Amino acid sequence: MIESNDSENKTTPSPEIRDVSSSPEEELLFPHLSNDFIHEIADALDWGDEDHVKNLISSLHAADLADLIEALSASSREHLINIIRTSLDPEILIFLAESVRDQVIHQIGIQALSLALTELESDDALAIIECLEPEQQRAVLKAIPAPERANIEQVLSYPEDTAGRLMQQEIVAVPPFWTVQQTLKYLHSADDLPETFYDLYVVDSRYNFVGAVSLNRIIREDESIKLSDIIEERLRPILVTMGQKEVAYLFRHYNLVSAPIVDETGRLLGIITADDMVHVVEEETERDVLMLAGVGETDFQTPLFKTFYRRIGWLSITLIDALLTTTVISQYTDSIEKMVVLAVLMPVVAAMGGNAGMQALTVTVRALATHELYGQNIRRRAIIKESLIGGLNGCFFAFILVIVTIGYFNDVHLAGILASAMIFNMLWAGLAGVILPLFIEKLGYDPAVASGPILVATTDVLGYVSFLGLATLFLL
Amino acid sequence: MIESNDSENKTTPSPEIRDVSSSPEEELLFPHLSNDFIHEIADALDWGDEDHVKNLISSLHAADLADLIEALSASSREHLINIIRTSLDPEILIFLAESVRDQVIHQIGIQALSLALTELESDDALAIIECLEPEQQRAVLKAIPAPERANIEQVLSYPEDTAGRLMQQEIVAVPPFWTVQQTLKYLHSADDLPETFYDLYVVDSRYNFVGAVSLNRIIREDESIKLSDIIEERLRPILVTMGQKEVAYLFRHYNLVSAPIVDETGRLLGIITADDMVHVVEEETERDVLMLAGVGETDFQTPLFKTFYRRIGWLSITLIDALLTTTVISQYTDSIEKMVVLAVLMPVVAAMGGNAGMQALTVTVRALATHELYGQNIRRRAIIKESLIGGLNGCFFAFILVIVTIGYFNDVHLAGILASAMIFNMLWAGLAGVILPLFIEKLGYDPAVASGPILVATTDVLGYVSFLGLATLFLL
Repeated sequence: MIESNDSENKTTPSPEIRDVSSSPEEELLFPHLSNDFIHEIADALDWGDEDHVKNLISSLHAADLADLIEALSASSREHLINIIRTSLDPEILIFLAESVRDQVIHQIGIQALSLALTELESDDALAIIECLEPEQQRAVLKAIPAPERANIEQVLSYPEDTAGRLMQQEIVAVPPFWTVQQTLKYLHSADDLPETFYDLYVVDSRYNFVGAVSLNRIIREDESIKLSDIIEERLRPILVTMGQKEVAYLFRHYNLVSAPIVDETGRLLGIITADDMVHVVEEETERDVLMLAGVGETDFQTPLFKTFYRRIGWLSITLIDALLTTTVISQYTDSIEKMVVLAVLMPVVAAMGGNAGMQALTVTVRALATHELYGQNIRRRAIIKESLIGGLNGCFFAFILVIVTIGYFNDVHLAGILASAMIFNMLWAGLAGVILPLFIEKLGYDPAVASGPILVATTDVLGYVSFLGLATLFLL
Repeated sequence: MIESNDSENKTTPSPEIRDVSSSPEEELLFPHLSNDFIHEIADALDWGDEDHVKNLISSLHAADLADLIEALSASSREHLINIIRTSLDPEILIFLAESVRDQVIHQIGIQALSLALTELESDDALAIIECLEPEQQRAVLKAIPAPERANIEQVLSYPEDTAGRLMQQEIVAVPPFWTVQQTLKYLHSADDLPETFYDLYVVDSRYNFVGAVSLNRIIREDESIKLSDIIEERLRPILVTMGQKEVAYLFRHYNLVSAPIVDETGRLLGIITADDMVHVVEEETERDVLMLAGVGETDFQTPLFKTFYRRIGWLSITLIDALLTTTVISQYTDSIEKMVVLAVLMPVVAAMGGNAGMQALTVTVRALATHELYGQNIRRRAIIKESLIGGLNGCFFAFILVIVTIGYFNDVHLAGILASAMIFNMLWAGLAGVILPLFIEKLGYDPAVASGPILVATTDVLGYVSFLGLATLFLL
């Protein structure tokens, strides 16, 4: 009962034992599916050797089978699904990348999908349903038995990416006046309990959350003791409408293992456990990485044109940045014509400013995401610190550049102007790298999305203006 | 028993209830500590009103108290620690940022630290000890009672960032031949059990791991049944020397809730639970974000000069990139002198290539980290896909640039050359964005560290060479 998603007839392959046949590097990089294994399956599919295919995949965990399905070509994939469709493990759907899952669902049909969903835990079934197209969603819900449908529809009524969408509804709720003996008797004989549970949730007569009692407490206490005497009250509930980012923060911040989810009146609706949070934390951090690189949510299974389309946004902003830069440079064509070395050196200041700025920006965006920047004190300190680091780095690299420029062009004035522009631009980069995301967050937007291009636009423009401007003023 | 780190006398403040006094945005951004609260504490510390301070912090969770300590100025921080040192909650140490923790440890002294550590769970105590300087470590270990010291020293013998460092040793191990009744009796009366546990681990006579039985199973089965009949064998153990990145991958990949940790002979050493993984997954993803931006591990509590020093590495590579670029441009000074518009337009191709390349690179680095790129098939598909996207985006933006260039400079030839250079550079950016991290990983290095600057160096050089080179060939 240690895996949150149980499929009774499967055995989890040990990561230490598998793949002994593949080369050592292969094993290091892909501990779960070897190239040889994938090729063997693909060959058996090509030859139509269904028994061999079934044999090969019989011991695979659903997560690995999902990876295998993703790794196959579209035609082999369809062939494989055809072979296993009658005995399709519903767990596989959980582990498939969204675009591949769409193909599989298309192939097996709505009826088979609905049947598979009823075998999954509520939170897993929901994760699949919420990704479906609206018409598919309606068709699936229609095919699911009424009581389960009602549960799913209730959860779908909570906004996306909130606690309500993440919680599982399968919990054991007990009244506070029960004794340990009564509770043990109930647990022993009740036949509608979830397959796995670690804690009991104590609720009052209106099903309002009162506290929790862990199973080890129940086993270790005397039988006559009432639950109300051993209740764990420190556990505070999370509102069902709280955003998943905030929920993940609470789990990390307070080192939570699980948390009860309630509505505004305090009624217990379900629980969220730490293993669900592993995915949310990764998703949220990953979103920041991808946003900062201007990629948006994606995986290698996303269709080509969708990916192409998603990347255009950021590149358009880059183009606008670049055209802004050319406008700036075009103001100084006279200077460049008189002194072509300016064209040679001008990208240096902009490049250094852009990178120094992105360093400060990335640190700030992540610190905001992990709530490190609480309180004006800490924010003020961060602004001062990053500006100082920008300035210090500016001085450090200006010094190096002065030596290089004098050595190469033998021009002390040029070196001085390059150094001044560099210090100025990197000081700005550090300052803007902190202030910009703070400001964007104050406005209510996600600082990971828009900060990067705006910052680089300022360091590019300032870089070129300061270098070319100072050169025009003092050298020509 | 729902928090993994329990401190009996504290109450977890509800995120929903606190901070009603602060403004709505404040509450949204920092749900746990309001500015007003921090100011009130700082004021009380300035006035020396110890009772008021004690009163204010009495209901704080250790995690929030740690945040408060971080938010205070160095002198207020010292003052606060002095006030609470006699009743210092050891939990606070877990939640403090490393550099602040060093200050606090320096202030309370090794003896008090050792005492605090013995009150923590083994994995938490270890997380603190492994961050200490070697001499501090020796002093602390000397002050810890012998049996606990032996445990800690054993764990410290495993390499950093491996499963051995993450596991907790407090587990309940039972023999397979016990009946449910015997087991219940043992659990009820034994006095050396961990405070919290959810599963029993079944071991043979040599303490080798056999399987697990969850507590709900024990409660629900008949008393005469033997543990060996209800054992959960699907659970495969993880080797104590496995890297934490791999462990995190297994937890995500198989949706694990907990995993037993064993040595090479199969002997059970401890367990790792999903709530520990929340931190590891975040740490590992965060490392990729920061590495890609050339920052390295950091937080805003890291001292100024340390941070300054850490940033120099990446900026040095940027400078080398930039100087390489200037060398390239300096080959074309004759062309620029004849046609200064080249200097105006040349940054565009390089900027677009750099950003398109970083998009492909970021997606690939994350896909490698999350083991999405298993199998040659998927890698080949990724290379083809990203090259196509680079090429498509190149064509798209080349088209826009042709219009802009003709409209602005009325020069069809110049527009054609700009467009060709753009398509060529962005095609390369997409291709290199995938191949480079794959290659760096094959060499055994972390692709997040070195890929960025190398990629941008190639797109910069190619961008300038293709544009200026083509222009020199065809326009002059």
